[in-house]
Amino acid sequence: MEFSSKLLENAVNEMSQLPGVGKRTALRLVLHLLRQPEQQTVLLADALSKVRAEIKFCKSCHNISDKELCEICENPNRNEELICVVEDIRDVMAIENTSSFRGLYHVLGGKISPMDGVGPQDLNITSLVEKVKSGKVNELIFAMSPTMEGDTTNFYIFKQIQDYNVKTSTIARGVAAGNELEYTDEITLGRSIVDRIPFEASLKS
Amino acid sequence: MEFSSKLLENAVNEMSQLPGVGKRTALRLVLHLLRQPEQQTVLLADALSKVRAEIKFCKSCHNISDKELCEICENPNRNEELICVVEDIRDVMAIENTSSFRGLYHVLGGKISPMDGVGPQDLNITSLVEKVKSGKVNELIFAMSPTMEGDTTNFYIFKQIQDYNVKTSTIARGVAAGNELEYTDEITLGRSIVDRIPFEASLKS
Ligand SMILES: [Zn+2]
Ligand SMILES: [Zn+2]
Repeated sequence: MEFSSKLLENAVNEMSQLPGVGKRTALRLVLHLLRQPEQQTVLLADALSKVRAEIKFCKSCHNISDKELCEICENPNRNEELICVVEDIRDVMAIENTSSFRGLYHVLGGKISPMDGVGPQDLNITSLVEKVKSGKVNELIFAMSPTMEGDTTNFYIFKQIQDYNVKTSTIARGVAAGNELEYTDEITLGRSIVDRIPFEASLKS
Repeated sequence: MEFSSKLLENAVNEMSQLPGVGKRTALRLVLHLLRQPEQQTVLLADALSKVRAEIKFCKSCHNISDKELCEICENPNRNEELICVVEDIRDVMAIENTSSFRGLYHVLGGKISPMDGVGPQDLNITSLVEKVKSGKVNELIFAMSPTMEGDTTNFYIFKQIQDYNVKTSTIARGVAAGNELEYTDEITLGRSIVDRIPFEASLKS
């Protein structure tokens, strides 16, 4: 792609670093911004810079938060003995949307995936194990996507905490194997939390 | 969509202003940036701010350019008596890519579309008519997308310049009616320039 302007080329190149955005789409998006009032680009650039520079994670559950503790962890009406273990903050948003869960979350920040070079040490697993060791957790619900990496991650954590006095369950697999959690419809996802089964039982299926 | 962070919500909202980017896609893109080194977001935000703030248009053809005159207009080897009229700089890029055209361009910056509130006064038409009036133009090639709006725009310009001594042609319609020019393959597009026909002949088809 030959550009008539270095500024334009540069903007298109940076935009096309985003996943799923090719050069052609990037050019379309940048030209759109050029046709809009300058303020729109200023707001976009500022919002992105700001969220990246100032983003904080809840020191308890690792959810994205503007404060030390996120609103869910801070809410006295939530059951802090029940912890739902998820991959990503999109999963927190998806489950919150079902209104079927009143416990807390623990956001791992990914899943164990040797192919992608992601090992247990890259995830928020130590802090989860510490929570369990503290004895304040009654039950962990594994709510990872039902993929091989999700299963591997569940099992790795299970091995770390199985000697402590904590129940473990996985969300019911109403979701077809291999699907991503965040694309599951609300009813199925809500149902799968209500129908959760003991983690050890899930190993037999 | 409920967000656990105002910063995140703001970034997702701004990102989802882009055409074809819904809230879910915007969230995926912002979370991607949060996982990358901060430098990537800084480069993206800077490139967008800079191109929007400093963008210049060639004072002759209205192509995006970092200088007063774009490289095409400045090139002494291009035939300045032959002007290809296009909607958008993406069309300049697409035609340049075919290496079949050695004249200059005139970028209208859109097409007449009453439905979208775009009239002739919103486009770079006056400067095109002035070029024709100056007597230095031998031929105008209308290379608008073959849509109703493209045809309307061609015809509007044709009425403005028909009393002056200038040939008019349209690119051959190898392209299926209703298709966008920029998605046409190079061979068809190059061929359609070589096969151009007098504009008046195109009105009869
Ligand atoms: Zn929290
Ligand atoms: Zn120019």
